[in-house]
Amino acid sequence: MLLGGTYPALMALGMLKAAPAYSFEPKTNLKGKKILILGAGLCGMTAAYELQKLGYDCTILEARDRTGGRCWSVRKDSNNQEIDSPKQISKFDEGQYFNAGPSRIPHHHQLTLQYCKELNVPLQIYNNVNEGSYYFAEGKGPLSNKKIKTREVHNDMRGYMSELLYKSISQDKLDLDLSKDDVEKVLEYLRAEGGLDIDNLYKASARRGYVNPPSASNQSGTIGNAFPLADILSSGLADPDFYNVAEYTYELQMTMFQAVGGMDKIASALEAKVGNLIKKSAEVTSIKNLENSVKVVYKDGKGLHEIEADICICTIPLKVLSNLEHNFSSNISRAIDYASYINTGKIGLQFKRRFWEEDEQIYGGITHTNNQLTQIFYPSNDYHSKKGVLLGYYNFNDKAIEVGALSYSDREKLALEKGALIHPQYPKEFENSFSVSWHKTPYNLGGWALYSSETRESIYKPLLKPEKQVYFAGEHMTYLNAWMAGAFESARSVVMDINNRVNERNEVYKKAED
Amino acid sequence: MLLGGTYPALMALGMLKAAPAYSFEPKTNLKGKKILILGAGLCGMTAAYELQKLGYDCTILEARDRTGGRCWSVRKDSNNQEIDSPKQISKFDEGQYFNAGPSRIPHHHQLTLQYCKELNVPLQIYNNVNEGSYYFAEGKGPLSNKKIKTREVHNDMRGYMSELLYKSISQDKLDLDLSKDDVEKVLEYLRAEGGLDIDNLYKASARRGYVNPPSASNQSGTIGNAFPLADILSSGLADPDFYNVAEYTYELQMTMFQAVGGMDKIASALEAKVGNLIKKSAEVTSIKNLENSVKVVYKDGKGLHEIEADICICTIPLKVLSNLEHNFSSNISRAIDYASYINTGKIGLQFKRRFWEEDEQIYGGITHTNNQLTQIFYPSNDYHSKKGVLLGYYNFNDKAIEVGALSYSDREKLALEKGALIHPQYPKEFENSFSVSWHKTPYNLGGWALYSSETRESIYKPLLKPEKQVYFAGEHMTYLNAWMAGAFESARSVVMDINNRVNERNEVYKKAED
Repeated sequence: MLLGGTYPALMALGMLKAAPAYSFEPKTNLKGKKILILGAGLCGMTAAYELQKLGYDCTILEARDRTGGRCWSVRKDSNNQEIDSPKQISKFDEGQYFNAGPSRIPHHHQLTLQYCKELNVPLQIYNNVNEGSYYFAEGKGPLSNKKIKTREVHNDMRGYMSELLYKSISQDKLDLDLSKDDVEKVLEYLRAEGGLDIDNLYKASARRGYVNPPSASNQSGTIGNAFPLADILSSGLADPDFYNVAEYTYELQMTMFQAVGGMDKIASALEAKVGNLIKKSAEVTSIKNLENSVKVVYKDGKGLHEIEADICICTIPLKVLSNLEHNFSSNISRAIDYASYINTGKIGLQFKRRFWEEDEQIYGGITHTNNQLTQIFYPSNDYHSKKGVLLGYYNFNDKAIEVGALSYSDREKLALEKGALIHPQYPKEFENSFSVSWHKTPYNLGGWALYSSETRESIYKPLLKPEKQVYFAGEHMTYLNAWMAGAFESARSVVMDINNRVNERNEVYKKAED
Repeated sequence: MLLGGTYPALMALGMLKAAPAYSFEPKTNLKGKKILILGAGLCGMTAAYELQKLGYDCTILEARDRTGGRCWSVRKDSNNQEIDSPKQISKFDEGQYFNAGPSRIPHHHQLTLQYCKELNVPLQIYNNVNEGSYYFAEGKGPLSNKKIKTREVHNDMRGYMSELLYKSISQDKLDLDLSKDDVEKVLEYLRAEGGLDIDNLYKASARRGYVNPPSASNQSGTIGNAFPLADILSSGLADPDFYNVAEYTYELQMTMFQAVGGMDKIASALEAKVGNLIKKSAEVTSIKNLENSVKVVYKDGKGLHEIEADICICTIPLKVLSNLEHNFSSNISRAIDYASYINTGKIGLQFKRRFWEEDEQIYGGITHTNNQLTQIFYPSNDYHSKKGVLLGYYNFNDKAIEVGALSYSDREKLALEKGALIHPQYPKEFENSFSVSWHKTPYNLGGWALYSSETRESIYKPLLKPEKQVYFAGEHMTYLNAWMAGAFESARSVVMDINNRVNERNEVYKKAED
């Protein structure tokens, strides 16, 4: 097991840029090994890419007429037909797009970045943090229906909280397990963190912005007033699901990236490597383990076809897999049937003019709302260009179900109506839209896998082991759900498992070599 | 005064993209008006650009053989000769550079962004916020000489402070002027803000990062331990001059931009518009007001020359101006002589390989140190490319004086030695350097103007009014010191003042028109 031990160790150490071409002799044995991969998303294509390097014979079946799965940028003529809905075709201009699936790459998703480098996919900053975007509380409290700048809420809350703690500590009301020197340091920290004044009180500071900005000559700038703490609280702007603690989340901390020109460039770059192995518009209907192989039935424009392979990698999302015919054991079958996926939706709105940049100096970042929109994302690309596609909403759970249940045109209407409360420029500048409800999208039926600590045991664990010749892979087979990193890590993991299995069967050869 | 009133009002409202070509008749009168501009930095060139649109006859004298002033990107063959020092010539590779002067554009510096748009200067995100960079305390406390991730300090401090305030409030130790409901909301906010656990205590959370990151299969990820509060404090990591409250500063809040390919692209774009008006290598030696004009003496390779104009715009930094011959009144002269500028320096270090990206997943952002380096800036451009220029230090005040006093090679030595404590890859990957000490650089003698509320009265105010035919302009004539926005706003302001003055003199014409 020389190689089986070395390869993952090297990979874990980040010392290998990519899976190396194995140098052992029984390669002739591999040549015969047929691997059938279900799904040409990032995981399926990456697995094929790595297995191909190792000399395996791979075929990929893809239900759609395009690759990438959820790694999908909606562009001119992109289309999708949701369940119980007509076909929707994008009328975006050439060059306009939005990422319907993953749109952000954290700087610590090393493998994702490594593949972007290896595949020559240029990256640019995804500007996830923007203090110039808004909080918008519709119909709630004294600050309702107002555009509140993120920096105003952030700095007012930090200021008030620092003032309160300062007061508490300086009045000796807390029993701190700290030296006198360290207590002084905490106080000094709070003064700086909160931007407290010389009386250690929070008053408005320049951090929250100006009514009249500083400029030349005698324009020294006029600072705006802080919002009363009670107003912020009762308008819900400090509520955890609203206040932007998302920025603190490990995966959402800057630096973040996106592929230049659309996230689907990553899928395209993989397709360029393994495109010859992919059968598109080939929808799997049945997966059956035989004694020493797997038989898969798929249908395409010409009818039903059977294909047999030594090993199968199934990247089909579990909610979709649950509807297919298979002969998996009952606990695997149950795990698949009870898997949970997030309900989520996005709408892209093409506007004639980047009014958010031109009129409001908003460049990228997110506006948060308490209504069905949940979030408006401003594009982090092509700043200062003429047109642009806003993400008019990106919502989850109940809000995503409610909005997803609407027709495409009613979603657009809602996005425009609610969005115009924040950006009155909407009606004048709007051109067209395209919406995606992932839980209503065939071949996905959900955004990404959701696990609790219980279902990590009851659903996830059973699926980690191959079901005879069938291996389960994809973001749902990782602790990186929702991230492209999940697809890449899962691909590497399943390639390792399969290669180790094949190596073990060739034990006689290897022993002779050692 | 029809136009005098309308133009600034429209400008203030942001309704004019650029100064319009005035349509009033006495244009023939303007044609004769000669405006002499001293300095082809951003302010001088912008003033010429706008005055030219209005029909004025402008000449710019520039002491250096290049335009842009402090808006300067050091590239292959760039050079500088500091006071009492030999000439330094950059050995950077073609395509490698760093911005020796301004390197960031805040999203709310609307006029700067507007000029970039008007002049077709492409922008990209300047990634000022990066949770993956480091805090490094040399020789101080239990966390000394360790690379502490920014996210670790940020989240530990937020966590501990939130826990303390939670405790204080929930034990009724603070007399809050809030309803019971609002108190509950504050507690809920603190739980979220601090990432407190179910016992409302701060323990390490995923926000501060992993020892082993989550991945595929059974790799659920292992979270690192929080640093003890006392350790953070005694290592000085929460000190105001170290802890990254700079990110909260209005001007440093994301979104931030830079010009693609170097900030000097902005200067080049302006030069493309007014280059024909500029006399380079023309060092002003004397400025004298005459009865109704100004006479300026400058020297170039051929000797001394005299030039006369109706009006002069002097953008020469005050510390430089103080050394020139002039006939200004005593209070203006005193204001100039007593002006204060910041001492500051930067060093660009070219490396063979972007080890900070490849080995440490640091993409842009700033590492903070307590030693002479003060800050290391990672490039926010050309991610994943081979070579790169790090800003090895960017320091101020005493540290800038200490380091600036060293020879170029000793600065390099210091930057490499101190930097290698953080990045041991330095010695192996280093190629060459270029350092700039602004307070030792001729024609600047400082980084940017520094004012106190006292000197705003004693120095700044007197200079706001023209000294007969001489107008003072530049970032030092604004409340936007250190920012390119200061140069642009000052240019617009002085153009307005001059144009109003000329219009008033043409009152007879305008009255006839009204």
